[in-house]
Amino acid sequence: MKKIALVILLALPAFCFSQDNEDSVMVRKIFDAEMMEGQAYENLENLCKTVGHRLSGSAASYKAIAWGQKTLERYNPDKVYLQEIMVPHWVRGNTERLDFSSTEDKLYVSHCCAYGGSIGTNGVVKGNIIEVKSWDELKLLGEEKVKGNFVFYNRPMNPTLMSTFHAYGGCYDQRYYGAIEAGKHGAVGVMVRSLTLKKDFNPHTGSMKYLDSVPAIPSVGISTMDAHNLSEMIKKDPNTEARMKLECKTLPDTTSYNVIAEIKGTEFPNKVILVGGHLDSWDVGEGAHDDGAGIVQSIEVIRLFKELGIKPRHTIRCVLYMNEENGNRGGKTYADLVKKEGEEHVMALESDRGGFTPRGFSVDGTPEQLKVIQSFQDLLKPYNLHVFEKGYGGVDIGPLKDGKVCLVGLVPDSQRYFDFHHAPTDTFENVNERELELGAASVAAMIYLVDKHGFEK
Amino acid sequence: MKKIALVILLALPAFCFSQDNEDSVMVRKIFDAEMMEGQAYENLENLCKTVGHRLSGSAASYKAIAWGQKTLERYNPDKVYLQEIMVPHWVRGNTERLDFSSTEDKLYVSHCCAYGGSIGTNGVVKGNIIEVKSWDELKLLGEEKVKGNFVFYNRPMNPTLMSTFHAYGGCYDQRYYGAIEAGKHGAVGVMVRSLTLKKDFNPHTGSMKYLDSVPAIPSVGISTMDAHNLSEMIKKDPNTEARMKLECKTLPDTTSYNVIAEIKGTEFPNKVILVGGHLDSWDVGEGAHDDGAGIVQSIEVIRLFKELGIKPRHTIRCVLYMNEENGNRGGKTYADLVKKEGEEHVMALESDRGGFTPRGFSVDGTPEQLKVIQSFQDLLKPYNLHVFEKGYGGVDIGPLKDGKVCLVGLVPDSQRYFDFHHAPTDTFENVNERELELGAASVAAMIYLVDKHGFEK
Repeated sequence: MKKIALVILLALPAFCFSQDNEDSVMVRKIFDAEMMEGQAYENLENLCKTVGHRLSGSAASYKAIAWGQKTLERYNPDKVYLQEIMVPHWVRGNTERLDFSSTEDKLYVSHCCAYGGSIGTNGVVKGNIIEVKSWDELKLLGEEKVKGNFVFYNRPMNPTLMSTFHAYGGCYDQRYYGAIEAGKHGAVGVMVRSLTLKKDFNPHTGSMKYLDSVPAIPSVGISTMDAHNLSEMIKKDPNTEARMKLECKTLPDTTSYNVIAEIKGTEFPNKVILVGGHLDSWDVGEGAHDDGAGIVQSIEVIRLFKELGIKPRHTIRCVLYMNEENGNRGGKTYADLVKKEGEEHVMALESDRGGFTPRGFSVDGTPEQLKVIQSFQDLLKPYNLHVFEKGYGGVDIGPLKDGKVCLVGLVPDSQRYFDFHHAPTDTFENVNERELELGAASVAAMIYLVDKHGFEK
Repeated sequence: MKKIALVILLALPAFCFSQDNEDSVMVRKIFDAEMMEGQAYENLENLCKTVGHRLSGSAASYKAIAWGQKTLERYNPDKVYLQEIMVPHWVRGNTERLDFSSTEDKLYVSHCCAYGGSIGTNGVVKGNIIEVKSWDELKLLGEEKVKGNFVFYNRPMNPTLMSTFHAYGGCYDQRYYGAIEAGKHGAVGVMVRSLTLKKDFNPHTGSMKYLDSVPAIPSVGISTMDAHNLSEMIKKDPNTEARMKLECKTLPDTTSYNVIAEIKGTEFPNKVILVGGHLDSWDVGEGAHDDGAGIVQSIEVIRLFKELGIKPRHTIRCVLYMNEENGNRGGKTYADLVKKEGEEHVMALESDRGGFTPRGFSVDGTPEQLKVIQSFQDLLKPYNLHVFEKGYGGVDIGPLKDGKVCLVGLVPDSQRYFDFHHAPTDTFENVNERELELGAASVAAMIYLVDKHGFEK
């Protein structure tokens, strides 16, 4: 008995070594295949240039769904199918204009874009402009100062935060809740400094909220340079007048689809490892970083597994979610169906932070799951992946959270993300081929490792 | 005695903690100052747009020297001075053209640029084209096949290497030694696939070498897309003819200058900590990443130290080297003078790998010096710096190497560097403000920490 124990003990390091070695060989193969003959970049070009931007409910969104289905089918997974969902249907309309006039500047036309979900102006709305940087400031001004005027939210993102997502998190409330808080005090509309650290003339759009209990007022983003200039105008002339005209409106909810592909698991066909991103985008730019990058990277997982003959133990499911941007109905509906059918998900990995050089993964799971992910750190270090920490998964996969499934987010370098986020500049040309491919390979390697080793000891 | 030892022992962790805390506060201050009010980006814009590219000996190079001096003086270091050097003086001339004709393509005009130091063609040189990817291939073909023809070096950079510098290292010999090896076999000229992983029509220039013992032949880079197309043309028609016309030439060596600024050390005024990059660039693009970025980052060290009232223990010297690109005379002359005057250098830190998100530092020093640099890892981790390893310093600081001085290179993310390196696309617009500033703050923080703690135990 002792002898056997000794043999096992002696064999263990060799076994571990060969396991590790097998893993490192396969990770190398995944990266080599992607960097040599990856299709992420050409697929992204195709999505951006033949479909373009693709807001839920728009004609382009259906084109994107067909594109996703066709692209996935090309790589021969075991099945590709559509999952029906209901999505909001907001349209920007033909005109959006916001201009200012002061004693000095007779006509200053801003670079603006309505926030998704905003009501239109039904003609031109006029008013003076109250600039604030915080909710406290707004509260202090109260109805007396605000009523009949526009509220101008001008709190800039904090450039000293190393993660631009944290800087975004510190300003996002202005965009999302701005109309509600200004509406409470009788404002006629709001304009919000674009959520970017870049000083330029590109307006950034995004989601916003109304409450039934507060009058809805129109809400737009203006470029950071316009925000700067407007602030100067108001300083010189507090009676600077704004004129806003928006023709946007919300139509009835409509049918749309998540696009799903699967490679059946050989050992655990009923246990799912999910990889995904969102197929919809805002209706500006081309949705290249947000989230064309995540879409083509997720598709690459299917392609690479087939190409390299990897037969996964668990079912690998690639989900191209619809409607992350203005409702997350794709994510919610998907999770509802999973719950309804009692389907087990082992891990869900989302890529939705841009197609930039990957730095690692953030893990929203149990301490044991985090430990397993961290155990791959040495294997992935040669690929410059160094972030393996507790953190956020992603919007689409969020509704799956049940204390059991491990949610994981790909963490790319964040420095440039908000230059392009929800802006006309989020185009194919602003994505770098190598950075995109490195992200695809990183995601595929993580899916491969978790599929092989699982989270159970 | 025992008691005193105990007191010291008990006090030590508190001391260490407060030291650490003081350091982390100052590092935070450096990053905050740079990210809030950094001047690296506006200085880079100024250098790129008022001076532009600035090859050694060119009119623009003298404009750059004056710019460097003036910019440094603005920040009030203890002194700013010029160090005279002699530099090569190569000029591109008015015409450079390389076209091909085959049975199918009557006239294909390539995107080419002569390599720095290349001779001109003295009229038009014609010949067939021999494509090779290795020295062995060339040797095997020998004089019989090569004589009277052009040699076309078409070995691509390896995309599977994670560091693009390694991929560059695997192909650089074609550009540098290509004319010599082809010249040995009687070739009339060489064309080399541009050293970039990007598939586009931008030709990349760079340095090359002749030997007195081998006939000098003209040498150009062609864009990767042209290299691809040329290879296809030759496959279809081995008699494809090339016609090359270059008017470049080498003029006599001329006078130029390193630009140097100093903040005198309070404790060790005779011990120098150097930070630098190179002021010259190739004569295409604007030398924005290579090495405008390193120049403005080095200048920021002086500015930040003055701005934050940091009084360094060692003398901090900022060196804007001339002539890194085609001779390294700035680096060599500087090191010669240091030796001659017996001046002690503690560390020399170079930034010359582009203005991209910094990842850490590579250290060419003793194991003890590496250990000291690595001891700052925890302090710098919050700034996403994770590379603290043995490696290369830089070309300019290289000649200082004497087994005592610690040479350090800033390591930015390398993925995009060779998209722009020595190409017309190396312009201000392709540098991201935050990425550039993060590099400046990282360099300043490292200089601050080494100045404070030194390398001695």
